[in-house]
Amino acid sequence: MAAPSVPPRIAIADASRHVGERVRIAGWLYNLRESGKIVFPLVRDGTGILQCVAMKNALPAEVFQTVRDLTQESSIVVSGKVRAEPRAPGGYELELDGIEVIQRVPESDPYPITPKEHGIEFLMDRRHLWLRSRRQHAILRIRHEVVRAVRDYFDSHGFTLVDTPIFTPSACEGTTTLFEVNYFDHDKVYLTQSGQLYNEATAMAFGKVYCFGPTFRAERSKTRRHLTEFWMVEPEMAYATLDDVKQVAEELVCYVVQRVLENRRPELAVLERDVSKLENVKPPFPQISYDEAVRRLQAKGSPIQWGTDFGGTDETLLSEDFDRPFMVDRFPAAIKAFYMQPDPERPEVVLGVDVLAPEGYGEIIGGGQRIHDLELLLRRIEEHKLPREAFEWYIDLRKYGTVPHGGFGMGIERCVAWICGLDHVRETIAFPRMLYRTRP
Amino acid sequence: MAAPSVPPRIAIADASRHVGERVRIAGWLYNLRESGKIVFPLVRDGTGILQCVAMKNALPAEVFQTVRDLTQESSIVVSGKVRAEPRAPGGYELELDGIEVIQRVPESDPYPITPKEHGIEFLMDRRHLWLRSRRQHAILRIRHEVVRAVRDYFDSHGFTLVDTPIFTPSACEGTTTLFEVNYFDHDKVYLTQSGQLYNEATAMAFGKVYCFGPTFRAERSKTRRHLTEFWMVEPEMAYATLDDVKQVAEELVCYVVQRVLENRRPELAVLERDVSKLENVKPPFPQISYDEAVRRLQAKGSPIQWGTDFGGTDETLLSEDFDRPFMVDRFPAAIKAFYMQPDPERPEVVLGVDVLAPEGYGEIIGGGQRIHDLELLLRRIEEHKLPREAFEWYIDLRKYGTVPHGGFGMGIERCVAWICGLDHVRETIAFPRMLYRTRP
Repeated sequence: MAAPSVPPRIAIADASRHVGERVRIAGWLYNLRESGKIVFPLVRDGTGILQCVAMKNALPAEVFQTVRDLTQESSIVVSGKVRAEPRAPGGYELELDGIEVIQRVPESDPYPITPKEHGIEFLMDRRHLWLRSRRQHAILRIRHEVVRAVRDYFDSHGFTLVDTPIFTPSACEGTTTLFEVNYFDHDKVYLTQSGQLYNEATAMAFGKVYCFGPTFRAERSKTRRHLTEFWMVEPEMAYATLDDVKQVAEELVCYVVQRVLENRRPELAVLERDVSKLENVKPPFPQISYDEAVRRLQAKGSPIQWGTDFGGTDETLLSEDFDRPFMVDRFPAAIKAFYMQPDPERPEVVLGVDVLAPEGYGEIIGGGQRIHDLELLLRRIEEHKLPREAFEWYIDLRKYGTVPHGGFGMGIERCVAWICGLDHVRETIAFPRMLYRTRP
Repeated sequence: MAAPSVPPRIAIADASRHVGERVRIAGWLYNLRESGKIVFPLVRDGTGILQCVAMKNALPAEVFQTVRDLTQESSIVVSGKVRAEPRAPGGYELELDGIEVIQRVPESDPYPITPKEHGIEFLMDRRHLWLRSRRQHAILRIRHEVVRAVRDYFDSHGFTLVDTPIFTPSACEGTTTLFEVNYFDHDKVYLTQSGQLYNEATAMAFGKVYCFGPTFRAERSKTRRHLTEFWMVEPEMAYATLDDVKQVAEELVCYVVQRVLENRRPELAVLERDVSKLENVKPPFPQISYDEAVRRLQAKGSPIQWGTDFGGTDETLLSEDFDRPFMVDRFPAAIKAFYMQPDPERPEVVLGVDVLAPEGYGEIIGGGQRIHDLELLLRRIEEHKLPREAFEWYIDLRKYGTVPHGGFGMGIERCVAWICGLDHVRETIAFPRMLYRTRP
């Protein structure tokens, strides 16, 4: 059923460079519209969606019939001439002159995700197929751009990538939310919650480092902001203070958003994202202290008291005051991790900073300056009742050439959810893992 | 003790751009040499090592004494004028005029890794400090370049990054080498051994994809090629055959080696790597069939019989015949994974390919074309006694628009070991995890 000659295969994303040429597209039927003696198959190939035009009068009868009978997600290779067509989605279309059907999905067992509405559990159970839809496609392409931008930022600012281990013997921030792994029956290890402690070692070797990989939290949370497995990028810098940490955090967030705006406009349009909100993301980010945040929240009616952490609602309330990401610093030492450097002028607060996204998306970055003094670190390990033996290597970093240092972690899924304007982080990763979701 | 004014801080890597200027360097004492009334402290800052010159006659007595008394890995900020000095390591030196000691490592508890020889277990126990040494530093910087090159290759060739889950309900290649995780007491999951099955789903959505993350194998191996936790990049392409897979594999390996040669010459020199071996890495890679490989091995005296897999020694023997990476294809179906596409002309072999590094470094890439026919896949799942229920989603990919497709996995640590010319993969990752090694 193929047309007389075999033209070169191109990607739909490159259609604009082949106007007037005969080409082949290998893909899947996304949708089919019929209008009298013309059929318009929409073909997707992973790089885009292209409208084809099959005219009854111009095609052999069996070719036209084959096209007309196509079912959703049937795999097909179509050939024809590319032409500019302002009315077509994407601006180009293919004047179809041949088709090879690799597999026709039968009516007896049709593709389960139809253009109609489906419930979220139905779609999540079919995540391996749902990823083919335009919206999921757009989200994951934006995610890719976010990941690239993050790496490009650090690679071009003197940071060395030093990935930290997934299997860790000790816990970074408490043991209650750790996944435990049986290690050959002779040992137990935990899945990393953060590469930070290791980053502190590698920062002393490389000056500026980052790690970027999956992290794990066994939290029994079912909120729209939680996954049990999520990706985090964590920079760490030797000879750095809280101000250096803030500067890198601000630059990074601006750079990432800028890159998405530059390279993923069509995807943002698919998601109907209000890009004016993203265009606001420019330095300087507003900065308030934790004290100030508590005062603002109380004035807005939150029951929060000084000394407790923000809840999700508090974060949303705070973000009402800002049109871009903002920073909150100097949290009470008691609610933060053992390794946080106290403010020399107010030891009850630490030199930590969170960056919160606007529009109620909550914390996307948490970090700060770490304790570099040996005696203070030892005291904190004792106060937090941590097993000193497991931290000996970490303590070594304060014995052999300790220096002020700091860094932060940025959660990729929360970042993507915010940039895409999504209700829930579950759509920001290909195969999300949640309390009651480990399949497919 | 600081000099009169505070000059700008620079990184050692940028010294060449500051010749004749007064600057500050924040780092650690790497080594100290004394020659009469001159002391030469070598300072490292993570971006390089710079020789400083402290002259007794030119410095206040207490500054000179401070420099002279420095101990290894003491953290210091030095100031002075940069000058070109061909005899200095790196070609530049700093005429020291001031020093601030952040922490002097005391003689009573000195830095444990001295320039003398240490045993491997001693060093591995102190991996958090060992990373500061010149050789480890060079290896991990090459690793970073390899990772960047891999990502740049795929990002610039139309592949979408779609990271696959670490927590997986089913096993890709057998269950005996899986790490099991207790998932909130209501489920059990395994740590991924490969993202391939998920890649096949995402390739049907995006056309060309790759995933790049840590993978896990609970192998009781203590060879120089095995880690329990290692990083792997895995591309997968829809509408692709074995030949497409080979082409991408060849291009990728050449590109990665080229990038290291371009950007990491000094590090290769530190490792005393024979770069002529790497300069050989150009297309086309020699290709032999499994049959041919067996004949060659038997001729070299190996006891291998047709139908069994290569051992490490076989891989080394084979590589004697080649001056660059080479490919072996069409393995017996019986020793390969259930999803491998049989050769239509010889169904007892599959359309798989391994790429082996030269110089005895063994397999760095394994991949091939996957079964796309529904009936055949179902038969294989049955033959391999795999639980069909766990594979329903994977089977779906053959029901809804199946197409020929293929891809491969490339192990980063083996690649880095080969490029760096290392005896053992344990030095190719910051914190290696092995059968009896989970710390620090």
